[in-house]
Parts: sequence; structure tokens; C-alpha cells
Amino acid sequence: MKYEESYLYKLRHSAAHLMAQAVTELYPGARLSIGPPIENGFYYDIDFPSPVKEEELEKIEQKMSELAKLNQPIVCRAVADKDAAKAVILKETTNGQGPENALYKLELLDAIPPGDQVTFYEQRAKDGNGQEHVFIDLCRGPHVENTGEIQHFKLLSIAGAYWRGDVRNKQLTRLYGTAFESKEELDAYLHNLEEAKKRDHRVLGRELGLFMFSHRVGTGLALWLPNGAILRHVMTDFLQKEQVKRGYQPVVTPQLASIRLYEKSGHIITFKDKLFPFMEDEEKETYILKPMNCPFHIEIYQSQLRSYRDLPVRYAEFGTVHRYEQSGEVTGILRARGFTQDDAHLFVTPEQLQDEFIGVVELTKVVLQKLGLNDYRVRVGTKDPASDKYIGHDENWQAATRAITQACESIGLEYEVSPGDAAFYGPKLDLIIKDALGRDWQMGTVQVDYNLPERFDLEYIGEDSKPHRPIMIHRAPFGSLERMIGLLTEHYAGAFPFWLAPVQVVVLPIADRHAEAAQELASRLRDVIHDSRNLRVEVDDRRETLGKKIRENQRLKVPYMLVLGDRDIEAGTMSVRDREEGDLGPMSFEDFVKRLNV
Amino acid sequence: MKYEESYLYKLRHSAAHLMAQAVTELYPGARLSIGPPIENGFYYDIDFPSPVKEEELEKIEQKMSELAKLNQPIVCRAVADKDAAKAVILKETTNGQGPENALYKLELLDAIPPGDQVTFYEQRAKDGNGQEHVFIDLCRGPHVENTGEIQHFKLLSIAGAYWRGDVRNKQLTRLYGTAFESKEELDAYLHNLEEAKKRDHRVLGRELGLFMFSHRVGTGLALWLPNGAILRHVMTDFLQKEQVKRGYQPVVTPQLASIRLYEKSGHIITFKDKLFPFMEDEEKETYILKPMNCPFHIEIYQSQLRSYRDLPVRYAEFGTVHRYEQSGEVTGILRARGFTQDDAHLFVTPEQLQDEFIGVVELTKVVLQKLGLNDYRVRVGTKDPASDKYIGHDENWQAATRAITQACESIGLEYEVSPGDAAFYGPKLDLIIKDALGRDWQMGTVQVDYNLPERFDLEYIGEDSKPHRPIMIHRAPFGSLERMIGLLTEHYAGAFPFWLAPVQVVVLPIADRHAEAAQELASRLRDVIHDSRNLRVEVDDRRETLGKKIRENQRLKVPYMLVLGDRDIEAGTMSVRDREEGDLGPMSFEDFVKRLNV
Repeated sequence: MKYEESYLYKLRHSAAHLMAQAVTELYPGARLSIGPPIENGFYYDIDFPSPVKEEELEKIEQKMSELAKLNQPIVCRAVADKDAAKAVILKETTNGQGPENALYKLELLDAIPPGDQVTFYEQRAKDGNGQEHVFIDLCRGPHVENTGEIQHFKLLSIAGAYWRGDVRNKQLTRLYGTAFESKEELDAYLHNLEEAKKRDHRVLGRELGLFMFSHRVGTGLALWLPNGAILRHVMTDFLQKEQVKRGYQPVVTPQLASIRLYEKSGHIITFKDKLFPFMEDEEKETYILKPMNCPFHIEIYQSQLRSYRDLPVRYAEFGTVHRYEQSGEVTGILRARGFTQDDAHLFVTPEQLQDEFIGVVELTKVVLQKLGLNDYRVRVGTKDPASDKYIGHDENWQAATRAITQACESIGLEYEVSPGDAAFYGPKLDLIIKDALGRDWQMGTVQVDYNLPERFDLEYIGEDSKPHRPIMIHRAPFGSLERMIGLLTEHYAGAFPFWLAPVQVVVLPIADRHAEAAQELASRLRDVIHDSRNLRVEVDDRRETLGKKIRENQRLKVPYMLVLGDRDIEAGTMSVRDREEGDLGPMSFEDFVKRLNV
Repeated sequence: MKYEESYLYKLRHSAAHLMAQAVTELYPGARLSIGPPIENGFYYDIDFPSPVKEEELEKIEQKMSELAKLNQPIVCRAVADKDAAKAVILKETTNGQGPENALYKLELLDAIPPGDQVTFYEQRAKDGNGQEHVFIDLCRGPHVENTGEIQHFKLLSIAGAYWRGDVRNKQLTRLYGTAFESKEELDAYLHNLEEAKKRDHRVLGRELGLFMFSHRVGTGLALWLPNGAILRHVMTDFLQKEQVKRGYQPVVTPQLASIRLYEKSGHIITFKDKLFPFMEDEEKETYILKPMNCPFHIEIYQSQLRSYRDLPVRYAEFGTVHRYEQSGEVTGILRARGFTQDDAHLFVTPEQLQDEFIGVVELTKVVLQKLGLNDYRVRVGTKDPASDKYIGHDENWQAATRAITQACESIGLEYEVSPGDAAFYGPKLDLIIKDALGRDWQMGTVQVDYNLPERFDLEYIGEDSKPHRPIMIHRAPFGSLERMIGLLTEHYAGAFPFWLAPVQVVVLPIADRHAEAAQELASRLRDVIHDSRNLRVEVDDRRETLGKKIRENQRLKVPYMLVLGDRDIEAGTMSVRDREEGDLGPMSFEDFVKRLNV
């Protein structure tokens, strides 16, 4: 069933009315505008006589509870037309505040075609003191039958919202809330909301020393701090090695190019809205900051004659690109203006397409497994047969779609087909990852492309000595370093898997006299190779109490703390503290290293 | 002695006259303009009646030899003033071609103040047939005494040159030549010239698959091909590890920033000529492509409160920067518009300056040694006491200069002091590397900076709990990846040291039936770790003759070729071919690996 037809949808709609009723009783003079249910709850936009603070939400909530418990029946009242409705609004909904109070409702009424029936929803009951409570609202419905049904709700936040979403209108106050059918569902939702807040990558990114922003640098342009730079390096190093094993060749291409390149590729039109402002130099050459790596890799492919024996050619680049997102849409590193794609382009013959696609999907699986992202589903975006927006021959589309689905089948990957979800230039495969909070992230697209080879007139000489057109595959298992690090930060709440943790081990000398032994231990550990890299070890020799240093390094989610005091140094051991398991007691150097490599 | 006062300088000047005499005899109507000695030879700009080709240089050279052997005395003739000089020019230097022939000389005469004495140099003698040869040129001199002294010379090339260097004037033909006092010196120079041509990094860069350029991308923006990308990676990987050992922390910063950042740093003024065109967006924010990494590292330093216990802070970044070089000045990757610096900035206390400077210079020495660049000298650029362009207190300058020279002394590095060679913001150390052809390259500057900490108001809290100003050190042992790879390519003529070679080993199966064994051998070799990295091994299984494949891989300067045929496979050996030493005969896998690691 669609959410819009569900009981939950009605329940939340009624909760919005209940909130409005509470507000009108608590804030005489408050003017109501609209209050719909939304994806995870509801809101009501209200024009308050004076500003309302977050702290007041509790008071409103309490009043809602009281009103809910009166078990007011919620009744639909239809009136014949707009004139009759206007009378009801002015007479019954202004709470004795005069006609100005109904300002927004009358404007809403205006939009209803004359002659149409108009409905109100009304809830009414007497309280224990015999006082009557009434709330009547212009509304299409539907609603639940009684306010008593609204038991599990919570008001969440306050925001500003322009009347009718237009900045030229008055800014109203939007109260957000949510409601569920059961306490368990409400609690689970609130818990996830709390978790998501704690895990916000923008907050953790700063706390863990991953990245920062600066107003002198600009919106959506992250400066990567040492821990973040290490994280990037470990991730790229891992993927690079996997790619070399699979016959990818690295390339490095410029950050900008002449407008000619993007005219040729077509991005100047298809990507117009995301381009940074152009740079025109004194020689009348116009440059564009690179929004995509593909045209550069094509230039390299095209720089020499290719034979079918040279294919597949697989060019990989950790390529930084720039896309001009609207400043309101920029969100930390998840949606930034500059980011680094783990990009690669494969130039293949039609015969190689399926095998190469399998190779790409297998690599993507290896990457996600290594990152600990094991809960994902696969969506194959195909052509919408009814649309004519697609370019290229039908037989190519069929062959490519078959190559994708058969690739999935051959490696035992379940997939759903989503017609109409292809790009205009070819079918694709998306991976939709579910994170620790159950949220979906669309990552790791693999894209078949017939368009760019055509536009650039790409060729290879076939076994028949004639020129043929290669097919391109675009792929990026991380999506981008930024987006993947954002996802991982929220998924792990900053407690990255051991191989990824920027600082893997911190040695804590208990007193100054243990500092030298701590440095020696750290230096020995730095020679240990784990996952093909030297361990990343630091010493925390600040003059703070051990308790404070432990708390601080726990906050930084360092996987292991090694505490060194007199007893440890004498016994040749160290006291090991695991980020998750806590104190593991004394351990020898060898036992600790063994533990890491299990 | 200064070159301008040397015999060689006079000799080359006279060679220019000799060339002009030959030209006037061979090309009636040729109009002379100017013909000075220059750094490595001489030229003469001439307005020829019809275009001259490179092939004609030999003919001119021959005529020069004939004229030289006439042992014409070269005599200075002074005339009283410009009027007298004009008469000489029109009467004696036009070779019967009319006054138009003296066009450029008369213009030169114009610039001489009236009343000044004017000099001509005249050479004259009769040949075996009794015919008289004469050449008279308006000239300040000095010259050698007789054309017979000009014995070891060579004409080199032809280029276009505008009269007086002004594009609005007529384009003349510039003939380049050189002359030496001995045949040995001439031969050595010509040999080096040939060598330099063969080693031109632009030619080798393309041949060895290092990098390319594309008109659709733009001037000075290199696309790095797989072999070049590997070279970059191996170099950065090496340096990164050395830096981590020395307590550097990696950071990654954006490719562009708001103009505010460069207003704050002052680059908007001091670096004005090298900035790419600005980008102004619809929100009226103006961005600049990053010309320098320093301001970004400063933003990171400044993002938290620093204590003296946190210093030194050492931020390292392989940071790509863009500088708008004039298109005529762009030279391959040696002078490109986009390049990647192996940049780092150290924020230090005054007490730490000397030790940190020692650390930086030691790292630079390690880097140059690893790259095999062992012939270099050190120049310390200090303040010119007579100039007032320097900022900062005198005691700081003295302390910093002392820190630099004492650093050199403590690590036993000889240096020359070059007063006036400091930047306006602090003294510096330059390394001047001599390459295999004896050419000097200024690389690896280490720079002390008092200016940026002042401009950004940088601070750390000292032991006295008061704020203090840190000092910055800028350094880049490679200079930039581009410039260093350009230098290495020319220095090694593309035959990179084994650890750097993009392809280290190529396996050559003799026939198709050896291809599988070749792949197996390659795969075994790829598991071998050399210099902390897996060996880079390829298989050349193209259907070409062994001879052709050996020639081709020799041309690509691959350090080792391993030939595999029936006999080798049977004996469990491979026939090893060293790039320099040639055929080494059959070797076991173990012996070959041992050889690599010696």
C-alpha cells in the first residue's frame, strides 16, 4: 500500500491538527496556515504573535497529550461552497481574534474553484472541568476517527518557512513532529534520529580531525586534516593495488581544460548547470574546471592507434572534479563542490563487454566487503521502451543490458530491473547500500556508454583489419572518496575498521618516566606490517591523567590503547585496551601483534 | 674574468661579422641588422631577399672558411660623427644595392647621440685570384685581430626574429652559430647539443609513454600516460614514506579558493602575473585556481589553538598548483601551467628553526641521493644590506641566516653565500644540480618565511602562557614532480634507475608456445618486493620477431628483458638481458632476484 493511503498517514495528519489545536489554546493570536503529513512525520506552519523557542515544544506536547486524552471525535463537515466556507472560517476558526486571524486560511480558500464543496475537520469535547475544547480546520482530510488514537508522538524541531515557499512572503514558524502507531516504532525512530545526529559526518569529521571548511576557501571545498588525508591515502592505496592486479593502468589528467574538450564531449550542454564559471584568458582561450574525467581518458585512448589486441584498455585515475552545486544544497563532504572520484574508464570490444562488466562488479564487491558494507542490493537501470530520449541502436541496448544481467547472474548477484532508470547513453548498474541506521545510499554505479565513443569517433582496428567502435564502461566503486568517507563515518559512527583507522594504536605512558619506553614501543610497532602497510602508531605523552587520556582517545575511536607503567615495563608487557571490548589486561608485544593479524 | 671581457667573446663577435661577410657575398640584396655574441655563440639578424633554408647553412659555413683563411686583418675605423658615419654606411656597406640596403644600419645610427665618435670594423684581403674581399660594419667592437683566428666554428640553426624584438616590425631571419678556441671545445659542445636534443624530455616523454599534450586540453597542461603516472606514484610514495618517518603529517587541500584567501596572503598582488583568470559565480563569490599551497596549510594550522608543545607542525601535500605562464614560455613539463609540488610547510618556534632546517636539508640530501643526482652545490640567499625591499626585523634575519649557514655546517654541506638572493620575506637555500650534460638546474629551495605568519597573525602559546609568532619553512625537495621528472628524463636520457623505471622487467616469450610460461614467470616476479614495492613486470607477447621486440624494449629503456624459449623452460632458467650490459646469459629465478636486490 502507498504511504499516502495508509493509516499512519492519516494518524500523522491528525497529529498535525492536534498540534495546531494545542497551539491555538496556548498562544492566542497564533495564525495557522498549512499542516500536512510528510515522509517521517508532520509539520504545521504557524504565524506566531512572538517568537517561539525549542524549549516550548515540551509544553505544546503536554497540551497535545491532554487534548488527545479527551477522546475528541474527529468529524468531517462539508459546506456547499466557498462562501459558506468563508463564513465558517470567520465565525468558527478565529478564536475571537478577529478576521485577520484567518488570513492564511482565506488565501487557501481562494484557490478552491467556485462551486466546489469545501470540507472542514472538527474535533470537540469537554474536559473534566466541563470546559469545552474545539478545533475546526479547513482541510481535505482524511483523518483518524478520534484524537484518542494519537498516543505515540513527539515534537522534534522548529524551523523558518516562507508562506507558500516564497521568500517575498512572510516567514512563518514551522513546527516539526512525528507520530507512530506504537511506542516501539516511535522509540526506534527517535533512537535512530539521535544516532544519526551523533553520527553526522560534519560533526565527527571535525572532531576526529578528518576535514574542515573555511570561509576564506569557500563553500563545499574541504580541507583534509591529517587523519582524513591518511584515510584517503589508505583507501586509494588499497584500491590502486586491487586495480593493478586486474590490469588497470594509472593515468593523471589536468584539473581544467579548454572549452573545446567539453564541446566535443557534449558536457558543455548536458552538464551546463554544474559547471564552475569559465576562465577566459588574454589569448581568448576559455578554460573550464574539470567536471568529469572521461574526456581526458578518451584523449589518451585516442593518442595512438589501437588494435583489438590492445583492448581492453583500462585507465584509472583518482581524479578530482568540480561541480557547482547550489550553496543551499552543499552538505559537508557528501555533496561537495570539489571531490575526488575513484574513476576508471574501460575501452572494450563488444565481445569483451560482459567479461569486463563481470570484472568491474567483482571488484566493486571486493571493495564493499573490505569496507564492511555488506548489506546492499543491486538495481539494473534499463531503457524505458516508451521514451525516445535514448541514443544508440536497439541491438546495442539489448546486448549491453544482457551483458549486465548475465554478469550479475554469473557471479550470483541478485538484482532488480528498473526500466527507465538507464542514462540516455546506455544501461547501468547501481548498488544501493543500507547503512547501520537502515538508511539507503546509492553508490558504485557501473555505466555502459555508447555515446562518448561515438562523439569522439573512437576506433580500434579489428581482426578483420577494419576500424571498429569500442564501448566504454564508466565505474567508481567508492563513488568518490568524499562521499564514501562521509558514508563510512556515519555508518561506523567514526569507529573505522582497524585497517582504515587513521591512528590504529596509541601508546599511553602513565608518567613522564615511562615516556621513553612508550616511544620505543611505538617505534617497534611502526615497523609491523599489517594489511601491507606499516602500523600507524602515536604516543600520547601529554601531561594529563591516564583517565583523561583514555577518555580522549576513546572519543577519537582509536582501536587500541596500550598503557605503559612501571609494572608493564618491568614485565616486558603492555596493558591493552580495545576500543570495543575495553581492558584486555597485560599482553606481550608478540601476542598483541598476533591479535592484530587474526 | 667576465665572459664579456674574454677572448672567446671577441672571437664569437668576429665570427658573427665573418658570417655576415659570407652572406653578403652569397646573397646580394641581403640587408644586415645586428649580430652580437651570446652565451654559447653568436647570431646575426638578416633581412634576406628570399627565404633561406637550414640546408644552406653549410654553404655559408664553407664561404666563411674561405674568407677566414684569407687572414683578413680586422681593423677599427673611427669617424668623427654621425654624418661622417652615414656617408661611410651609404658609400661602403651597401654593396652597390642602393641606400635601401642600409635601412637597419641607418636606424641603428639614429640612436647614437650627435657629436659622438662612431666606429666601424673593417676586414679586407685579396684572394688567390687577386679579387678583393671587403666587409665593413657599423660596430662598437671589440674584435680579434684577424679572421684567420676564427677556425673552430659551426652554424647551428635558423629562426625568425622581429626587428628590434617588436612584433609590429618586419620579421628578419636569425642565423645562429657558435665558435670556440679549440676543436676539442667545439666538438664537446656540439656533442652535448646533440645529446641534449636526443634527451629532450618532450620527445622522450612521448616516446616512453610518460606524458602527452592535447590542443583540446590546452597549453602547458600535461596528460600523464600510464608510465608517467607510475613514475609519479613511485616518487611520491618514496617521499611520503620518508616524510612520515620524519614526523610530517599529510594534508589535502582544494584546487581553488575564494579571492579572500589570496587577499589575506598577499598573493593577489605579489603573484598577480601568474594567476589564471578569476571565476566569479552567481553569488558574487570570486574564486582563483590555487597558485600556492601555503595559505591552505596556514588555514589548517589556524583552525585550532596551538601550544609550544604541538610545534613543530609539519604539513605535507603533493599539491597541484596552477600558474599562468605566457604560452611562449611554456616548455613541456619543465615549465607547465599546472604542476604538482611536493610541498610542505613547517611551523616552528624560533628555538626550533635551526634543527628543523637541518632536518629539511638532510631529507633533501636523501632525496637527491636516491634519485642519483649527486653533483650539486648549495647557495644561501641572504639579504642585500643596501636594499630596503625586505620586511621583518634585522635580528630575525640574522638569526635565520645563522640558522641556515649553521645547518649547512653541522651536516657538512659546503655553501656559497649570495647576498641579495633572499626573498623579500626571508633568507633561503637553493640546491643547484649539475646534470649528466653539465647543465645547471636550480631545484629544491628551502625558504624561511616571517611574512605569512605575520599576515595571518599566526600564534602559538609559549611556555610562558603568552602568544608567540611561529616561523614558517617552505620546502619541496623535488621542486615539482613535473620539473624533477623532466630533469631526470634528460639526465638519464630516459634510462631511469631500476627502482624508478615504470616497467622494470619485460618477459619476452620467443614463440606463442612460450607465452603461458612467460605469464607465469611475470606473475611470480610481480610478487617479488623490491624497494618496498612489488616489481613492475610486463609480458611482450606480440607476434613480432625476438630481435624486433628486443630493439623495441631497449628503445623503451626497460632495465631487464627476460627471454624465454624451449631451452630455458626446460632448464628452469631465463635468458637475462641487461639494459646496459647486454646479454647476461641464462639465470635461475632466484639468481635474478638476488641480482636485483644487490
